[in-house]
Amino acid sequence: MTEVVFQPVGKRVTAQPGDSLLIAAQAGGVGISAVCGGLGICADCQVRVLQGAVSPLNDSERDRLSDADIAGGIRLACQAVIAGDGVIVVDIPAESLSAPQRSQVEGEEIPLPVEPAIRIHDLSAIPPSVDDLRGDWERVRWENERVRWENERAQGLTPSGWRITAPVLADLPGILRQHDWHARLITNESDAVRWLPPDGVPLGFAVDVGTTGLAAYLVDLQTGHTLGITGATNPQIVYGEDVMARLTLAVHDPEGRARLQTTILDGLNDLLHTVCDQAGAHSEDVVDVVAVGNTAMHHLLLGLPVEQLGAAPYVPAISSAVRTPARALGLDVAPGAWLYLPPNVAGFVGADHVAMLLATATPDRPGVTLSLDIGTNTEVTLNAHGRLWCCSTASGPAFEGAHIRDGMRAAGGAIERLMWQNNGLRWATINNLPPVGLCGSGILDAVAVLRGAGLISPTGAMRRGHPDIRREGHRSWYEIVPAHQAGHGRAVTISRADVNEVQLAKAAIRAGIKLLVERAGLSEQDIDRVIVAGAFGNYIDLANAVAIGLFPPLPPEHFHQVGNAAGIGAKRLLINAGERQRADALVRQLDYIELTNHPDFSDRFAQAVRLEPEPWE
Amino acid sequence: MTEVVFQPVGKRVTAQPGDSLLIAAQAGGVGISAVCGGLGICADCQVRVLQGAVSPLNDSERDRLSDADIAGGIRLACQAVIAGDGVIVVDIPAESLSAPQRSQVEGEEIPLPVEPAIRIHDLSAIPPSVDDLRGDWERVRWENERVRWENERAQGLTPSGWRITAPVLADLPGILRQHDWHARLITNESDAVRWLPPDGVPLGFAVDVGTTGLAAYLVDLQTGHTLGITGATNPQIVYGEDVMARLTLAVHDPEGRARLQTTILDGLNDLLHTVCDQAGAHSEDVVDVVAVGNTAMHHLLLGLPVEQLGAAPYVPAISSAVRTPARALGLDVAPGAWLYLPPNVAGFVGADHVAMLLATATPDRPGVTLSLDIGTNTEVTLNAHGRLWCCSTASGPAFEGAHIRDGMRAAGGAIERLMWQNNGLRWATINNLPPVGLCGSGILDAVAVLRGAGLISPTGAMRRGHPDIRREGHRSWYEIVPAHQAGHGRAVTISRADVNEVQLAKAAIRAGIKLLVERAGLSEQDIDRVIVAGAFGNYIDLANAVAIGLFPPLPPEHFHQVGNAAGIGAKRLLINAGERQRADALVRQLDYIELTNHPDFSDRFAQAVRLEPEPWE
Repeated sequence: MTEVVFQPVGKRVTAQPGDSLLIAAQAGGVGISAVCGGLGICADCQVRVLQGAVSPLNDSERDRLSDADIAGGIRLACQAVIAGDGVIVVDIPAESLSAPQRSQVEGEEIPLPVEPAIRIHDLSAIPPSVDDLRGDWERVRWENERVRWENERAQGLTPSGWRITAPVLADLPGILRQHDWHARLITNESDAVRWLPPDGVPLGFAVDVGTTGLAAYLVDLQTGHTLGITGATNPQIVYGEDVMARLTLAVHDPEGRARLQTTILDGLNDLLHTVCDQAGAHSEDVVDVVAVGNTAMHHLLLGLPVEQLGAAPYVPAISSAVRTPARALGLDVAPGAWLYLPPNVAGFVGADHVAMLLATATPDRPGVTLSLDIGTNTEVTLNAHGRLWCCSTASGPAFEGAHIRDGMRAAGGAIERLMWQNNGLRWATINNLPPVGLCGSGILDAVAVLRGAGLISPTGAMRRGHPDIRREGHRSWYEIVPAHQAGHGRAVTISRADVNEVQLAKAAIRAGIKLLVERAGLSEQDIDRVIVAGAFGNYIDLANAVAIGLFPPLPPEHFHQVGNAAGIGAKRLLINAGERQRADALVRQLDYIELTNHPDFSDRFAQAVRLEPEPWE
Repeated sequence: MTEVVFQPVGKRVTAQPGDSLLIAAQAGGVGISAVCGGLGICADCQVRVLQGAVSPLNDSERDRLSDADIAGGIRLACQAVIAGDGVIVVDIPAESLSAPQRSQVEGEEIPLPVEPAIRIHDLSAIPPSVDDLRGDWERVRWENERVRWENERAQGLTPSGWRITAPVLADLPGILRQHDWHARLITNESDAVRWLPPDGVPLGFAVDVGTTGLAAYLVDLQTGHTLGITGATNPQIVYGEDVMARLTLAVHDPEGRARLQTTILDGLNDLLHTVCDQAGAHSEDVVDVVAVGNTAMHHLLLGLPVEQLGAAPYVPAISSAVRTPARALGLDVAPGAWLYLPPNVAGFVGADHVAMLLATATPDRPGVTLSLDIGTNTEVTLNAHGRLWCCSTASGPAFEGAHIRDGMRAAGGAIERLMWQNNGLRWATINNLPPVGLCGSGILDAVAVLRGAGLISPTGAMRRGHPDIRREGHRSWYEIVPAHQAGHGRAVTISRADVNEVQLAKAAIRAGIKLLVERAGLSEQDIDRVIVAGAFGNYIDLANAVAIGLFPPLPPEHFHQVGNAAGIGAKRLLINAGERQRADALVRQLDYIELTNHPDFSDRFAQAVRLEPEPWE
């Protein structure tokens, strides 16, 4: 018997020598993506063996993996077989995890020193007596502040004092008396945030508030370690799938703004309690909170009016970073905790994009880097030799499964990957459940695969007279899964109208890329690196994305799928306060290009509608 | 026909020549105190005629009024008769008002410049355009802050920035667009508190949170004018009449502390809405709040734990001034308004006493000044030629009508004044309603009058064998109002037990006075001035108070009844931020004497129990 430990999920699984790592993972309920079903074809199931004995690299792996991957220890989980007894430790990269583990929370991380915005002060006091009737607060702060004041004065600074509010102060008398007149004070700038016992651990909570999905992280602010991760659907979705529907509700319904705010705050509290349960922690020990989101999600979370955001010239209530009391909004965190949101760039380039750019080090990279966060609005930033341009492009919700007849979010039973095999479509679903619809990556694959098989023309028309293409009046569609194989007993199809939605989405994104590159005086071929962030961007098949012209036809190694970089960026803003200054500097540096009134936009968009790698010729 | 205008209540009354001012007031529903029923005996109904023709001073008035009063234009309303046509303007001093007008809210005021803690900034902005997509906040602050930053830098200060929270920011976009890109910002230190229209008036709310009563004031922070005044019973009273009962609930019932806090906050919100209705104002325009109260009320209002306050050595959670977000506590004021509470002196000398000392200028007076705030705990401060001592003495609730068989609070139907006339007691009730009980001043009068008539001995025993003294077993009592004359059909009485409660109360206060005077190396005869504050202290008959030994036997002109000086002090802390610094300085200056373990206290207390002006001999 062998034990296989799967990281980063931390699951320990007992397995037999001769089992593949994929079989071991499936037996243990660890979801590794494998569209080909373990045949060594799709190369989805890449893992890194960190420790233990497995079979040597075979031909399938040599064919499917790059030299760099092989050098880095990457294996295909379906081909690597357990070779003996003892413990095997396997790391599953985010892109190989199947939902829900991968959901929208994982992402690549660049190491960062732990220097949070909060400070820890270990204080002690002498007990009161009839000759010393000072209050507890005066008692405990005196020694510490005296030293601090003298230091500050020595540095030529104006001596500062801590500010404490009543809800924060309320915990002090109990903690002092239970811990022999010792207590740990957490401050943020000069504000007292929370009293902890002398060995109490200050926690941080970071959230990425997407229009569709939420990702949340609980962090130990002493070590920087992530103690809990979770994701969920944005519960505002019941008020509208896309941003504009929610903005309309907030503007036209007198109660709308408050209802949307309460809904998202309830959702964030649910995530907070989930990650705290994972870590066995109390949410009141969360002493700092970071949230990132697009400008609309940012405003709805903060309860800010959105009239001016939904009408030209689309200005936010605030562009700069926000620091606001988290409890006053309704978050169940420490009484003095602040909620920080990084600055917005413009009405449709929000704090989430800023966080993503920081997390991917986009501003610091040499050469020409293109960074995208694909969603209902897709934000695109180009770093051309140190000069930064960005834009937002209305790509619509097709890649989130909306406005697609059999589209769905990336949930169990969603077809997430398609291949053409033996003259037919082969599909894989999330959690291996019977198929019930197509999520974003499945939709993209379907269009690309049918286009590759010649069933769809470059303009999106379905091939006339082909036996697999059904027609009824003006409608035409291809049946991906027949009704009897589907989880809900209805066929899963893709129609001409669905294909057109994908064309509009990809044309908007590609036109944005093209216009940024043109503004920099470059061509798309000059791009050295494409960083693709976001839940959808992380799981798409890049070859298919290039084939339909979503991305420029660059060599595969130029692309980097980094997962939820916005969420990782939020976590970084929690762990290192310097990231907040870097966010401010980045926003000043970014040159925002408004596409809605750009003279060349409609031309580039019309060209990019064709399902071809290079629509410009 | 003549019109009489009564100030400060502002009531206009039509009257006939020949009517006394008292009759005119009663006809118009203006409550002037008059225990003797208008016979010119009690001298309760003192008013000042500011304008118009009334009869000349008569002999009754010359007998009852001091030369200083006469020189100051004081008349007895029952003796001054309307002499002709035209408008008469009459000012009713607080001490002549009968409840409910007088309640616990009026007090003497010393003028003060209007320099509040908040600042007003009139800002304007240029509208956004496609070339200027800054947020509203950046747009409006930029011009102003640039000037300010440059000024600060020129003064060698570190340039500071305004801080704004999301709930404050939420009002900006609407106000800017409704007022042609002009808006008024209210700040407190560097915190943005509230956006107002360009002509919006910033308001302040001051409250005195007494154990028994609440007093509230609405103030225009531009002019310093009082726009609304109201009072109410502290709704926490349902959880216990005295402080200890409430502290016990807060300590022993897990929900107790939160329930007491919610109760008082609900009560304060009721007062807030009442004064705002009086002024036709919105409570959200209240941009600064001051609350004063004894240390227990202070802690219960702020939700602070009280365990350490209820057990020796009785230390507060905080001694220094508190500045905490008012909305976070639940007050319906501006989103960024701060609640300020002045510093506490000790466990039983609270912020209300500090406010009272400031309002009465006690620390600044030459000679020897004794200032008292009589309540369940009576705080006493002695300013002996610039050196300040203070103490708190547990006088109990007798003077608030509690622990007295027929005692009641100062509400309609309470006997508030008693006189011995024609061999019997004559009484006056609040609002002239049929009597139902005795409030504090009535209880004091009853003891003093019965003592003066020889019906009570110096030790508090009821005279044996007197026909008006009833006995039953160990009980003995005097019937003040027979059952058939009482509002509720039961006799209103005062018993030996009641007299003993009064003895304990007055002994505690007098012993405190004596010990402070001794500590200063003085005797009671050295006191130049006795300032008596508080609702009870304002309405007591000073001669009676001296007769039973509550106060030292000093000349009547040494006594000053100043009304609710704590409430007035709260209002001053709102109008002038310098008062907050003076409060800090005063607390450092005050020398607190703990009486609970004072070696001489029980001796002085035992002596002071006797119902005599000078119990020490």
